[in-house]
Amino acid sequence: MTPFEITILGCGSAKPTLRHHTTSQVVSVKGTPYLIDCGEGTQVQLIRYKIHTGKLDHIFISHSHGDHCLGLVGLLSSLALDNRSNDLHLHVPADLEPILQAQIDFFVQHRNFNILLHPISFELPTPIFEDSLVKVTAFPLNHRVPCYGFLFHEQPGDRHLKRECIQLYGIPYDAIPSIQRGLDFTTANGQVIPNDELTTPPDPTRSYAYLSDTLVVPQYTELLQNVDLLYHDATYCAGDEALATKYFHATSLQAAEFAKACNAKRLLLGHFSSRYKDENGLLEHATQVFPHTLMADEGLTVAVD
Amino acid sequence: MTPFEITILGCGSAKPTLRHHTTSQVVSVKGTPYLIDCGEGTQVQLIRYKIHTGKLDHIFISHSHGDHCLGLVGLLSSLALDNRSNDLHLHVPADLEPILQAQIDFFVQHRNFNILLHPISFELPTPIFEDSLVKVTAFPLNHRVPCYGFLFHEQPGDRHLKRECIQLYGIPYDAIPSIQRGLDFTTANGQVIPNDELTTPPDPTRSYAYLSDTLVVPQYTELLQNVDLLYHDATYCAGDEALATKYFHATSLQAAEFAKACNAKRLLLGHFSSRYKDENGLLEHATQVFPHTLMADEGLTVAVD
Repeated sequence: MTPFEITILGCGSAKPTLRHHTTSQVVSVKGTPYLIDCGEGTQVQLIRYKIHTGKLDHIFISHSHGDHCLGLVGLLSSLALDNRSNDLHLHVPADLEPILQAQIDFFVQHRNFNILLHPISFELPTPIFEDSLVKVTAFPLNHRVPCYGFLFHEQPGDRHLKRECIQLYGIPYDAIPSIQRGLDFTTANGQVIPNDELTTPPDPTRSYAYLSDTLVVPQYTELLQNVDLLYHDATYCAGDEALATKYFHATSLQAAEFAKACNAKRLLLGHFSSRYKDENGLLEHATQVFPHTLMADEGLTVAVD
Repeated sequence: MTPFEITILGCGSAKPTLRHHTTSQVVSVKGTPYLIDCGEGTQVQLIRYKIHTGKLDHIFISHSHGDHCLGLVGLLSSLALDNRSNDLHLHVPADLEPILQAQIDFFVQHRNFNILLHPISFELPTPIFEDSLVKVTAFPLNHRVPCYGFLFHEQPGDRHLKRECIQLYGIPYDAIPSIQRGLDFTTANGQVIPNDELTTPPDPTRSYAYLSDTLVVPQYTELLQNVDLLYHDATYCAGDEALATKYFHATSLQAAEFAKACNAKRLLLGHFSSRYKDENGLLEHATQVFPHTLMADEGLTVAVD
């Protein structure tokens, strides 16, 4: 199965502390990293957790609050010093684009690579990116400023060729890739063998959803139905709902109820407020409703499967 | 003697590494902190080394390269979240002012304190700030962009009242402060006692000079003559002079020669390139010329005396 995993670089909230960095994480599919959010200090976290930026071509920013994007300019500056040459795509909420462009123009003038800004501004879930490994859909969350969730869908893999058909139909080695991609096969004597006689379906595709920072968004339980891993804002502990509502965040209990409604396989909680000594209370409340809950932590890698 | 010390928050160069943060340091006089430069991650370093920002009212930025200022907006954002109310003064090179103002307007909109930007743009050493504890003079360095050094001069302390004069002239308790400040004293029977009969001079004042990033600036050996502590750019090791010249930095050996020419009491080297495994070579070359050399390191506190 293709490696598909999430590495947490930071899971704190507004202010960094000695325990938690501000938000950033890496979605890694078959060794290709995609960065989601880029709080201050992300570039050092990338070094610390050995995420190589040579293949990092896409960065997704959820919203314009500093704890999700103030590490961008430093990271871009260091990529320029690394003599990067391949294009870098930044998918950012439209309100962030002008100031980000101004910062890039000022601080990252000297570089040998293109930085392409792709503004996000949608009222409904919208596909924003696709390559051979993943499809990414952005969907508006409910926060104080325009803020987007990201749903990463693994691209379907190859169909599995039935081993016994190779000899049965005399399939040459160089015909195998096209059959795995779904094409029929024509034998040496002109007989067309339909693909579904030759193959079994590919592995089921997996999905990862990132929702931070936000109030609970029940309108997306259908979009996120059966998601394999759900990262959700859990800034506050049950009992602090009033604060969560005031600041447009969620409690871990609300996140767990949402994960249950989505029939998610696993829930990963993050964006922890610095007001709590630790996150044990958050985990306890969440697991009562949704047992398959994990707590984010800097350096934690979670496989999506 | 009034406490007057420097705490290093970061002494790396362009790119942060797992060993060194980008540049930032605190000059602390009688418990009042003044911040010089503010590379990415400075706000966490302030927490780590227990520098309280409640009394931090002045920040001095040497130049507009990201490794000296990209932590500013994050720090200001966190001060806003801390509900700071007292004015904050930012002394910054004039070229940095517009983009910094734009970032503050975007990222630090919601705050209960004033941020006052004081642009620095001088061709000669110029006093830029004075309070009851220090005088600060900015002087242009020789770097790729406008860049300033900062000379911190401790303000003169009180004169010392000769203990025996109190009884001899019947000096009341509430007359002592004015005598310590240099005024004459009139006795009960109208006799005027000149101050220099009553007191001895205050302790000699101390000074700290910060020079980073720069080629060596021999034109300032007079300005910095007898400085107590000299912090100097030592990005490169002797042998790499060509690189130092190309990028407008200094080697540790050049810094040591400059410290000697200034007759500095002690030299503190910093802004280390990440190209060297460690800084032993830099120290070795410097001490051959200037034995009283110290190496900056994160968390190091050096008293100016």
